[in-house]
Amino acid sequence: MNPPHLTYKESGVDIDAQDRALSRVKVLAGSTFTPGVLSEIGSFGGLFDLDARPGSGRILVASADGVGTKLNVAQMAGRYDTVGQDLVNHCVNDILVQGAAPLFFLDYVAAGRLVPERITAVVEGLARACTENRCALLGGETAEMPGLYHGEDFDLAGFIVGCVDRASLLPRDVARGQVLVALPSTGLHTNGYSLARRLFFDEKRFTVDSRLDDLGTTVGEALLAVHRSYFPSLHPILGQGYVTGLAHITGGGLPDNLPRILPEGVRAAVRTNSWEIPPLFGYIGREGNVPADDMRRTFNLGVGMVLVVKPEGADAAISALRSRGERPWVLGELEAGERGVRFTP
Amino acid sequence: MNPPHLTYKESGVDIDAQDRALSRVKVLAGSTFTPGVLSEIGSFGGLFDLDARPGSGRILVASADGVGTKLNVAQMAGRYDTVGQDLVNHCVNDILVQGAAPLFFLDYVAAGRLVPERITAVVEGLARACTENRCALLGGETAEMPGLYHGEDFDLAGFIVGCVDRASLLPRDVARGQVLVALPSTGLHTNGYSLARRLFFDEKRFTVDSRLDDLGTTVGEALLAVHRSYFPSLHPILGQGYVTGLAHITGGGLPDNLPRILPEGVRAAVRTNSWEIPPLFGYIGREGNVPADDMRRTFNLGVGMVLVVKPEGADAAISALRSRGERPWVLGELEAGERGVRFTP
Repeated sequence: MNPPHLTYKESGVDIDAQDRALSRVKVLAGSTFTPGVLSEIGSFGGLFDLDARPGSGRILVASADGVGTKLNVAQMAGRYDTVGQDLVNHCVNDILVQGAAPLFFLDYVAAGRLVPERITAVVEGLARACTENRCALLGGETAEMPGLYHGEDFDLAGFIVGCVDRASLLPRDVARGQVLVALPSTGLHTNGYSLARRLFFDEKRFTVDSRLDDLGTTVGEALLAVHRSYFPSLHPILGQGYVTGLAHITGGGLPDNLPRILPEGVRAAVRTNSWEIPPLFGYIGREGNVPADDMRRTFNLGVGMVLVVKPEGADAAISALRSRGERPWVLGELEAGERGVRFTP
Repeated sequence: MNPPHLTYKESGVDIDAQDRALSRVKVLAGSTFTPGVLSEIGSFGGLFDLDARPGSGRILVASADGVGTKLNVAQMAGRYDTVGQDLVNHCVNDILVQGAAPLFFLDYVAAGRLVPERITAVVEGLARACTENRCALLGGETAEMPGLYHGEDFDLAGFIVGCVDRASLLPRDVARGQVLVALPSTGLHTNGYSLARRLFFDEKRFTVDSRLDDLGTTVGEALLAVHRSYFPSLHPILGQGYVTGLAHITGGGLPDNLPRILPEGVRAAVRTNSWEIPPLFGYIGREGNVPADDMRRTFNLGVGMVLVVKPEGADAAISALRSRGERPWVLGELEAGERGVRFTP
């Protein structure tokens, strides 16, 4: 019997392929660098100099997130850049709701086998969204893990750090009588994909290329619509003093995410007739025969971000948002009651 | 035909099980909170107030990492806490080499099915290591992704942010004539597991419980030895001025990691007789018939961290490290030559 003769490459890890992908990644990341970035990727950690952002606040806000099983849809469609945008925008929104502007982002990509074109497509999406949010793509980790990820599977996680000064932290002074102003989502964002995938691909046996006449689009296009960032429209108006809270409507929907910014004794009254649920959600609810409460806890139903606004500032908020090309509407108001959400007609 | 009736839970996502695990996670994370932490986990992003660390530096250092396929070994052994320690310590070491002290850490855990006891075991390890490194476990994301992760598979990634003042950034003034001082690793740390797993579990058909007489331990114990942190021993001596650089010996080994801190025209001369390669590496090299160069590029071979020290400070560095319970040795020196590593007897 010959003794085994093992090398790292034969074990399924190709360091050279990783290096090729990483050199393209460095270029993409470099294109996002803001004045605070001190290091090039490739040193051990990424460096960010806070003095390059004078007056930007001494409180760091950090968040970690993934894209969830929207990744599976991206894989089915062979489209890898949009999930990078989804991830950055999701993270940006998560710290925006505390009043923060992003400083930098780091990613984690893991796959059974590293496909350089796929990694660079993901990073193209990350870099595009980072640029749109004035956020440096400061570093990340690309891991080839044969044996853990099977076939074409891969996972993608992100980590963001932003900053805010103490006086601008949100939520602050959220109180009954204040107005809920909603901004539309661009689709499912990054939540509800396990349910949606089961309906479209298991029950209906659609492919990503199947055309949905109700929606005027394909299943893949509908499900891969990019999770948008609210930062460019929202951050500039936060300094005007009328916004007391922001809720990013992610997993758990309105019922779970609105209460997170409410004090005890304050309830959100949400007028369900104030907006039209987009056709994609209607299709899922109808064709999947999904109970209304499950729809609300699983999907954003067309509401991507909710602002809590002082009543005297509601008109100003809506005008300011409209002037930035947004389509805001009054979703409801805060009333006395047990901390939670009451749905009204 | 009955119409489908889909709920999120039936799609494989159990939000309630997630909530149960998260409440224990909150307690564990809370135990790591340092004075800078402003928020409790559960708000959208974690908040860290830099003013709680006066004088701690205005340069943020961030790093992302995973545990790699050491996870598979943990899974085979049914032991989930040590990989949490591995991950935090790896990240802490990665920013320590730039002179930084950790501020906070966030984790990303993804699995096909969320097993609450397993998640809490992972977080116990994260929290233990965070406490040891005076690092707040500020938040994280736990994702249940049926369809992406199979069976018991899960993945774990981590993100760390630390800070340093500009004058203390490393490397600085690394130059020929300086001395390389090594600190021992505690095992494979988090690199080379694809090769090691192939040898132990595919070629040798061992289980984690197989006893290795050469090592006086089981395969599982040998492979799961915790990747140690060098922060408690090393950070206090960085202010003494004689350390010009630090290299964390991870994937790529000494040949890839030492050059990362060398200027052009400076080469590291590493004396291979200066230390005894620990039996685990000897066993892998011998039984796997792994070429010497592959061993050096895949494993740390017993060298976990390398300090570059000014010649006049070498004795002081070694005494200071010994007084902290370390077992340092002189690994070699920096000489004129092409940026890289030269191995000498």
